[in-house]
Amino acid sequence: MATLIAAKHPSPIDDAETIKKACKGLGTDETSLISILAHRNVAQKKLVRQAYEELYQEDLIQQLKSELSGSFERAICNWTMDPAERDAAFIKEALKKATPDYKVIIEISCTRTSEEFLAIKRSYKSLYKHCLEEDVASKTYGDIRRLLVGVISTYRYEGEEIDEGMAHSEANILHQIIEKRAFNDDEIIRILSTRSEKQLRATFSTFRNMYGTTITKGLLVNPIDEYIALLRTTIRCIKSSQRYLTKVLCDALNDLIAEEHGLSRVIISRAEKDLKDIKDHYFKRNSVTLDNSVANKTSGNYKTFILALLGNNSV
Amino acid sequence: MATLIAAKHPSPIDDAETIKKACKGLGTDETSLISILAHRNVAQKKLVRQAYEELYQEDLIQQLKSELSGSFERAICNWTMDPAERDAAFIKEALKKATPDYKVIIEISCTRTSEEFLAIKRSYKSLYKHCLEEDVASKTYGDIRRLLVGVISTYRYEGEEIDEGMAHSEANILHQIIEKRAFNDDEIIRILSTRSEKQLRATFSTFRNMYGTTITKGLLVNPIDEYIALLRTTIRCIKSSQRYLTKVLCDALNDLIAEEHGLSRVIISRAEKDLKDIKDHYFKRNSVTLDNSVANKTSGNYKTFILALLGNNSV
Repeated sequence: MATLIAAKHPSPIDDAETIKKACKGLGTDETSLISILAHRNVAQKKLVRQAYEELYQEDLIQQLKSELSGSFERAICNWTMDPAERDAAFIKEALKKATPDYKVIIEISCTRTSEEFLAIKRSYKSLYKHCLEEDVASKTYGDIRRLLVGVISTYRYEGEEIDEGMAHSEANILHQIIEKRAFNDDEIIRILSTRSEKQLRATFSTFRNMYGTTITKGLLVNPIDEYIALLRTTIRCIKSSQRYLTKVLCDALNDLIAEEHGLSRVIISRAEKDLKDIKDHYFKRNSVTLDNSVANKTSGNYKTFILALLGNNSV
Repeated sequence: MATLIAAKHPSPIDDAETIKKACKGLGTDETSLISILAHRNVAQKKLVRQAYEELYQEDLIQQLKSELSGSFERAICNWTMDPAERDAAFIKEALKKATPDYKVIIEISCTRTSEEFLAIKRSYKSLYKHCLEEDVASKTYGDIRRLLVGVISTYRYEGEEIDEGMAHSEANILHQIIEKRAFNDDEIIRILSTRSEKQLRATFSTFRNMYGTTITKGLLVNPIDEYIALLRTTIRCIKSSQRYLTKVLCDALNDLIAEEHGLSRVIISRAEKDLKDIKDHYFKRNSVTLDNSVANKTSGNYKTFILALLGNNSV
């Protein structure tokens, strides 16, 4: 379930005018920006952007960028973007870092639906004049390249069918790979990057039943090997995207500097989808609500904005 | 340019009724089937199938299958199918062979546009309850798997932009690979499977200018290595799909038994697209028209049908 509290029938023109007014002159009326944008769904935000462009011949996102700064600017701009465009930008940014943030690429490719991820690829192509696969492949090497390119390029099947025999035989293949510590075997990448999520979950649970342990535990052999860490990330995202995203939130709230963008990335990406469920996972894991943790660790307009997306209707 | 001569405003209901009449009782009026179906474009064929389904609660393709046989049945059924569904079926068939026909998979993935190939992936998923990538990956091994999965999974960029510096540096990478005979180097697969067609053509021509020979010649080292042969096929398809498809037609017409499906696959796939240009390439290569070669090597209803698709308006 979503946490977003969207207005019922807002007028895009009124919204655009209020935003323009909030940005006029010296200083900005951030509360006014939050009170509008934090309560609009994807379709409504699109209409506001269109209205803004028509009324003022200016892109709303560019206006927000020039007016605001820091985490708040970043969060409200990302939130206002089209989701596919936003995810494409997250991936581009992850690739551009001095130490590329491959986990973000795995997270986005394994927690979106096939159609959503396809829309991201389309946005990526039109924004950056390259296809996603070529940029990921040209910035990576060896096993990490094989895993990442595999995961981002498959247009996964999403049907309900499960082949129990295949789950059995592929659990066995994975077990052999783990026993031999042959973690860069082609087969592990083939299985993780091409099978449907449902099929993989069946394979993972067959593995647990057959061998009395989980695959991720089997992969806890070398904590500093980045490729093996990415295999674990892939498996976790596929096992339960909500639990994985909860973990990203926990890491971000524990170390806001190192994981600076994780908090807003997850909240922005899921507020209109399943953030309510992620909040439940968070509470189960930490015995404290996500809203409380966020309120303790953040401040100012950023705090107000993120709490609004979390369903706190104070603004 | 296309060779298909499509009727101007045919009535789908009249077409369905004429087809039903042609199939009634003992024997079939093949000429009548050809006179309709060989002169309908994609949209028109779709409407005929819908009308047939509504009038007779029967799928037109199933009806044709039960009524006809041999090459003619195969060709007219393939022609009547939706193009994405047909290409998905060609790939499935290529994979199912005792010795899988990987060339067909390369041909289809490298001569269709990104959007066309995406439609093929969608059809494949809905027809076979697996994604294309998983079936190709699970039926292949080693270098062939890496090449094929790479080529079929990328959603290639199709813009006009070319990066000359990249063409230069990647021509150099390819040259080093060829010099060292390290044909299974990850880089050759990365370049061929992820770069845009325009970029690759620039790389190929830079290669020729820098080293005075073509990449395909550099890959003529081991005529029986299937992986290297597939690399050549990939390069040829990307260099010029029309010239590659002309070659497929020549091979098929030289040895109709070994290459039994190549002739109709190319003609059916391109009749509404660029078969006129492929005919020109064929004539330049053989000093005889494609129509003449087809007429000499085929017979019966199959001949009449294929010639009609080639633009011979005798039926």
